[in-house]
Amino acid sequence: MIIILKKDAQAESIRRLEDALKAKGISANHIEGEHQNIIGLVGDTSVIDVENVLAQDCVESVRRVQEPYKKANRKFHPDDTAVPVRNRTIGDGSLQVIAGPCSVESEEQIITTAIACKEAGATMIRGGAFKPRTSPYSFQGLEGEGIKLLVKARAETGLPIVTEIMSIADLDLFADVDVIQVGARNMQNFKLLKALGECDKPILLKRGLANTLEELLMSAEYIMAGGNMNVILCERGIRTFETMTRNTLDISAVPLLKQKSHLPICVDPSHATGIVSLIEPMSLAAVACGADALEIEVHNDPKSALSDGGQQLTPAKFAEVMKKVRSLAEYFGRTVG
Amino acid sequence: MIIILKKDAQAESIRRLEDALKAKGISANHIEGEHQNIIGLVGDTSVIDVENVLAQDCVESVRRVQEPYKKANRKFHPDDTAVPVRNRTIGDGSLQVIAGPCSVESEEQIITTAIACKEAGATMIRGGAFKPRTSPYSFQGLEGEGIKLLVKARAETGLPIVTEIMSIADLDLFADVDVIQVGARNMQNFKLLKALGECDKPILLKRGLANTLEELLMSAEYIMAGGNMNVILCERGIRTFETMTRNTLDISAVPLLKQKSHLPICVDPSHATGIVSLIEPMSLAAVACGADALEIEVHNDPKSALSDGGQQLTPAKFAEVMKKVRSLAEYFGRTVG
Amino acid sequence: MIIILKKDAQAESIRRLEDALKAKGISANHIEGEHQNIIGLVGDTSVIDVENVLAQDCVESVRRVQEPYKKANRKFHPDDTAVPVRNRTIGDGSLQVIAGPCSVESEEQIITTAIACKEAGATMIRGGAFKPRTSPYSFQGLEGEGIKLLVKARAETGLPIVTEIMSIADLDLFADVDVIQVGARNMQNFKLLKALGECDKPILLKRGLANTLEELLMSAEYIMAGGNMNVILCERGIRTFETMTRNTLDISAVPLLKQKSHLPICVDPSHATGIVSLIEPMSLAAVACGADALEIEVHNDPKSALSDGGQQLTPAKFAEVMKKVRSLAEYFGRTVG
Amino acid sequence: MIIILKKDAQAESIRRLEDALKAKGISANHIEGEHQNIIGLVGDTSVIDVENVLAQDCVESVRRVQEPYKKANRKFHPDDTAVPVRNRTIGDGSLQVIAGPCSVESEEQIITTAIACKEAGATMIRGGAFKPRTSPYSFQGLEGEGIKLLVKARAETGLPIVTEIMSIADLDLFADVDVIQVGARNMQNFKLLKALGECDKPILLKRGLANTLEELLMSAEYIMAGGNMNVILCERGIRTFETMTRNTLDISAVPLLKQKSHLPICVDPSHATGIVSLIEPMSLAAVACGADALEIEVHNDPKSALSDGGQQLTPAKFAEVMKKVRSLAEYFGRTVG
Repeated sequence: MIIILKKDAQAESIRRLEDALKAKGISANHIEGEHQNIIGLVGDTSVIDVENVLAQDCVESVRRVQEPYKKANRKFHPDDTAVPVRNRTIGDGSLQVIAGPCSVESEEQIITTAIACKEAGATMIRGGAFKPRTSPYSFQGLEGEGIKLLVKARAETGLPIVTEIMSIADLDLFADVDVIQVGARNMQNFKLLKALGECDKPILLKRGLANTLEELLMSAEYIMAGGNMNVILCERGIRTFETMTRNTLDISAVPLLKQKSHLPICVDPSHATGIVSLIEPMSLAAVACGADALEIEVHNDPKSALSDGGQQLTPAKFAEVMKKVRSLAEYFGRTVG
Repeated sequence: MIIILKKDAQAESIRRLEDALKAKGISANHIEGEHQNIIGLVGDTSVIDVENVLAQDCVESVRRVQEPYKKANRKFHPDDTAVPVRNRTIGDGSLQVIAGPCSVESEEQIITTAIACKEAGATMIRGGAFKPRTSPYSFQGLEGEGIKLLVKARAETGLPIVTEIMSIADLDLFADVDVIQVGARNMQNFKLLKALGECDKPILLKRGLANTLEELLMSAEYIMAGGNMNVILCERGIRTFETMTRNTLDISAVPLLKQKSHLPICVDPSHATGIVSLIEPMSLAAVACGADALEIEVHNDPKSALSDGGQQLTPAKFAEVMKKVRSLAEYFGRTVG
Repeated sequence: MIIILKKDAQAESIRRLEDALKAKGISANHIEGEHQNIIGLVGDTSVIDVENVLAQDCVESVRRVQEPYKKANRKFHPDDTAVPVRNRTIGDGSLQVIAGPCSVESEEQIITTAIACKEAGATMIRGGAFKPRTSPYSFQGLEGEGIKLLVKARAETGLPIVTEIMSIADLDLFADVDVIQVGARNMQNFKLLKALGECDKPILLKRGLANTLEELLMSAEYIMAGGNMNVILCERGIRTFETMTRNTLDISAVPLLKQKSHLPICVDPSHATGIVSLIEPMSLAAVACGADALEIEVHNDPKSALSDGGQQLTPAKFAEVMKKVRSLAEYFGRTVG
Repeated sequence: MIIILKKDAQAESIRRLEDALKAKGISANHIEGEHQNIIGLVGDTSVIDVENVLAQDCVESVRRVQEPYKKANRKFHPDDTAVPVRNRTIGDGSLQVIAGPCSVESEEQIITTAIACKEAGATMIRGGAFKPRTSPYSFQGLEGEGIKLLVKARAETGLPIVTEIMSIADLDLFADVDVIQVGARNMQNFKLLKALGECDKPILLKRGLANTLEELLMSAEYIMAGGNMNVILCERGIRTFETMTRNTLDISAVPLLKQKSHLPICVDPSHATGIVSLIEPMSLAAVACGADALEIEVHNDPKSALSDGGQQLTPAKFAEVMKKVRSLAEYFGRTVG
């Protein structure tokens, strides 16, 4: 960490700051510049509160040098993390494809869709039981009942199930789920992250729509700090000024997160674009740049869907997409499954 | 609502769509254009799920005409809402100033700061008991103990207290709080909003850092749909590409929200800018364009603060700011208090 | 186009608006809603100035239904446009790779780099003669001399040359250039676009860093309105809140622009990310989702480069990237060249 | 400037880098950290090309400490710059109000509007002769003829005139103009900035819609590097995800630019919001936080305006706004004029 001092910094204030740093085991190196004096800190600077340094009279600004995340940092864990999910693994070089409807709506709907997804080649089933909806007047999900229907879909297909949690209070209902998803709106619901850090299930952590990659890694750190190392990062589009797509898929996040972290990366082209015709090209792009998994919305009858009808694929269209995705994965020497 | 049909839309698909709309009490008007045919809908279109319409074969796109919020909408409630807060009111033409530390850290800290804030002219006391922190390694707040200390600060000063909730599970701890704050990261924590809709306390709802004004109003709608009409909207900066300030204060949100809604508006210059020297000019700007309240971070000793030290005012500086704020409010014929 | 009327709209004002529209050959259809009355317009609404409609007393807001671009619009030109560039073609199903240094710095530098690029498989040579630099104190390019050196590089390699124009005043200097590039900062330099619409050279039009895809297409329209149909659109990253990459590559722009327009699409991973290690994965992603061309910065000695040293590939690294790019293109049944 | 070295940096590569820095008169200070080694540079680091440093093998990243602008920097020019404009001054503590139509459309229009603006209290007249329009099919301005009409308006009112330049080629036509405006889309048209640096007229430099404050100051630096010190900075809204306003007025730019620079600051609420009803509250906010000038669009008949009809005030409404603006300025001890 580098501290840039004010032009008129008092020696007394600087001394006090250095004493406080020394008490934390950090030593300070002075560099006297032409226009500015700076202090370079040596030691484990992750224990320092930047805001606290900024509050000192003598300090103009602070530049961080080290990343603030440790357990999620590839520097300290060079090997890829492979997350076991029942009879599958995410992050071991295979390509996993999580497919299913936006919302679980009925037994018939989820079972029919899950079977169709499996036949097309999906390796896990998704479905929303708790639905975060912008409007209080929209369908809010079947909740606990939805999870039970997902479990039936797993029994029918043998595929692991993935579903989103919205509140710690519901955690018990997820006991029989294979992967717990944290949605974009909850990426910084720190209480929830902490609770998930103490459970033993893999967590699919979606990037918030206005969150930086560093913040995503800090949220993974919250979960990992509690002891749960099975975190899968998910890029699902960020909010920008562009309005033609629902969000902007930040595809460079895939290789960049792989450089910065050892955790596996999933891409969700359905939420990133909100446009059915973009799901195939974005899935191919994600595979080409190294994503470990895809999450794609599929509905047995999108025209009757109770949520997100406009971005869900029909099983027939999904089968077409899967054919191309599987072929491309194989071109790269990877297996779907 | 306007539905734009695809060029090759099938009559059968259009008929099916119209039947579905009719079943919801909505009638359809056809307009045949040169290049495009459209359908204009008449009736209460807030019952329609846009995504569902988009999933129909014949539909190219949809344009909303009516706002999706009702209870928060000024069109249906032309008069300003005044929110009673113990011995004060927000939204009655007065200017309320909520001041206090980022975090409650100790009895001495909160009592000293609260007294200083009151002397300078603050009308309510804030302090964080539950702290959303980006890093799991940062101070996380005194939680329930912090709320008890706030209650003591109220006993000492007679000023109402405002503090942030992070989880429904903690709701009981807020029984003795005057205003419950929903932080930016929880603006779309819909389960929490619903729970708050059923309580009888005023809610200070902060805009999420990547949320539109319409989404802010929809989150207010969640609370109001539950029966709690005492919502105060708070602009606290949005995330943009600019990095010189922590966030970008969207000052035009103040008059715009006042046009669209009858709810009172608060501005938080501390979080919006993250820079101590900008709090005074931004407070003056907020008053000049009609804000009903300000929320300002003040700490008795920012240099020792456990969080956000860099953006908290000293009591002395806050007293200077208040002097100018009060004078400007009086120029506009408004009273602080 | 849909006009939403104010609640208290005067009949007289509405009549005046309709008369004005009628005079432009546009007919108006009324739809009386529960809360709002709207007018649907039929005819060629591209002649209407939205701002002018908004200025009428009776109008609350306006929603466009038709795209404002015509010549660039696939609806009116269903077949792909193939742009001939000397002995190559962009947009005919082949993959073109434009490579070369950020700036032309010397004869030795550009010739050495161009030969290396050709050997690695590049099909066109780029190099900046006029350089838009944020700081007035940075290297500003060799200007006319730089173009002459590019022409020598073409003589040496037989590959077409691409270079950026910054001002109409320099247009004569581009007489011997094969493709004129319009940089991101000039995407809405309308005077320049108009001038280029009257020349007979292909234009590589880069998306501005804060411009929507619709605005990019409108800028293409400016060039095409002058008679020059040979426009290549280029996605090179947009500005967002993310700071880990220089810009955010909006990869979904590739398939989306292909749906909306018949013009070929180029992707520039060098400027989009600003990070050498991301160029390969982003190039592969671009090919996988259908880009017609790539533009990649290569320098014979990036360590001594006078500009953008940090994002230019060495010839050796570029050769590695090309090997993977060519193989992937062939997997998709496309040829580089 | 701080250079962060790679973990595996070779001594040889570091030595080469230091030699190159020494040759530029910069000395290097090593700080050996636990996980990272860094080099702190002392000397005039504005001569260093950051990209060049990044291209060296041993370098992981670079953090700037000094601002890259000098002539625009308050650190080196502590006193406010006051820009003389014919019989007025911007930046001397007065409040200047520049008013007039978006476009000059006819003699009658500009003269009528200019007289009305003067009567309401405007101190300068604006009007667009060259119009940057997104669509090639929209009205593009009266060009040279428009400037002549502005000169007539000045003769009629005695007020200085302000108008926008779009191309160096037109510079001669601006000989009789009092202030040359550089529009948002040309903020980084560096050729144009250089040319304006060599002329002797005040320049009103508008912030680009996706440009940071630092980039705005660097563009001012371009003009000032040429010898023209009379630059007025103008905040006119930036592009964000919010769609309810045309742009987002970054009001904190006003006090922040005043801290960083000695140049005067203008605010343009018309372009920032695009909404007539927001111009008054945003003008008051701008005055309250210290803007030196306002630029407001006024049209004698907005309903017939050839451009931007929806955001131009009528003379009557402008007179109301001016009354409040003048009163508020006087409250702050400032004079309009």
